[in-house]
Amino acid sequence: MRTPDELRTLVEEYIAELALTPELHGQADSVRYALVAGKRVRGVICLATAEAAGAEAEHALPAGAALELVHAFSLVHDDLPALDNDAERRGRASVWAEFGEAVAVLAGDALLAEAFRLALSYPFPQVGRELAQATLGMIGGQYLDITGTAPDEATMHKLKTGCLFGASVGLALWAAEVPEREQAPWRAFGDELGLLFQIVDDILDGDGYLVTHGEDGARRLADDAAERARARLADVPADTSVLEDIVDGLATRTS
Amino acid sequence: MRTPDELRTLVEEYIAELALTPELHGQADSVRYALVAGKRVRGVICLATAEAAGAEAEHALPAGAALELVHAFSLVHDDLPALDNDAERRGRASVWAEFGEAVAVLAGDALLAEAFRLALSYPFPQVGRELAQATLGMIGGQYLDITGTAPDEATMHKLKTGCLFGASVGLALWAAEVPEREQAPWRAFGDELGLLFQIVDDILDGDGYLVTHGEDGARRLADDAAERARARLADVPADTSVLEDIVDGLATRTS
Repeated sequence: MRTPDELRTLVEEYIAELALTPELHGQADSVRYALVAGKRVRGVICLATAEAAGAEAEHALPAGAALELVHAFSLVHDDLPALDNDAERRGRASVWAEFGEAVAVLAGDALLAEAFRLALSYPFPQVGRELAQATLGMIGGQYLDITGTAPDEATMHKLKTGCLFGASVGLALWAAEVPEREQAPWRAFGDELGLLFQIVDDILDGDGYLVTHGEDGARRLADDAAERARARLADVPADTSVLEDIVDGLATRTS
Repeated sequence: MRTPDELRTLVEEYIAELALTPELHGQADSVRYALVAGKRVRGVICLATAEAAGAEAEHALPAGAALELVHAFSLVHDDLPALDNDAERRGRASVWAEFGEAVAVLAGDALLAEAFRLALSYPFPQVGRELAQATLGMIGGQYLDITGTAPDEATMHKLKTGCLFGASVGLALWAAEVPEREQAPWRAFGDELGLLFQIVDDILDGDGYLVTHGEDGARRLADDAAERARARLADVPADTSVLEDIVDGLATRTS
């Protein structure tokens, strides 16, 4: 079993060496730009889940990278002037600020299509199917967010963040060929991860749950979410020590 | 064998009744708006190919609709102010003009993800794989177009229009489970369709090939492309009479 850091390196190297579709021509530059750096949390969860389920981590790399590409696609489009209007992302120019809005729209589109290409490199369609569902949920959450039409904060985050975290576990289960009837306890774990990630994100960024629940309240919510994630892991009939490490890392991260 | 008009009705009804992912919430309105009306050329070619290959046309409906959704996605994003800045599409407000730019960006994203959901409703991944490749080629063509970096007009159109027309035949072959070793003559036919469509489009719109080749020159190019498409069909070991009707329709259309 490899550590989360070792798995992150695997994901990073795979993405760095990823052969993009040649027909993208010059569009590939902005796609690569959007893929430089990142915590790769979703990819790491995917690889760790696959390894815990008895597969080679490497076998889950196309699925893990597909999740990272969908995440990158969502950031590129969210940063656009018409949406969040962020000219910076991770300390450098966002894609639209660097390449212009038109190329940024196409870069997001290309990232999404490349993600499906990766997810469909498996000989069965389930990895791609779950990626499509998760992406649609994420888009629905983004819609609720930008239009201010969410019934409540939890519903919005469950879609906007939770879907892709849940899929990080789900895609790994398909890649590892875990039979559907055995997937439930794993999925219950995956469902807890998005909320944990989001609350800690808000604490670090000083918005969302921090504003609505205060620092102590938000921290308590994060601890509760981490506790539930650990409890769900206890129901998984496998060595989930690396996934526990990931939960601890998500709960205590400072960046 | 059904006529092109009967097949178009099938595609139209399927898209009109399409159940979108509930998690899209209010985003679904703009997605439906983008899907109202259209020639459904790609969907009709897909159904006609599947029927010629011996499958039920209905069996190709998810594939045919997926092609129409990818086409709609490309129009929604192309119309954005940062790209073609078209406030009108088919005689009414374009998606961004009706719903705002932010929702239009997400509408295109949702159409693309829904397209993959449809393409992945088959029990094998090949329909989705080919859709991903075609979409990436189309995005590459759009990049060459908006940046003015295409080596020549033909390369740009082959990607921007041709990829999705080729896939209209290709997706049908997978849906109809035509073995890969028997697909070549069908695909040679599909490769001719995009150019034929594009030249006639330019003649009707008064741009592109009409400008570079003049009216007579462009008409001759279109006739040559239709002739090649018919010649390719002659190599296909099946009753391709409906596909011939489609070629005639594409060559002589006036809108």
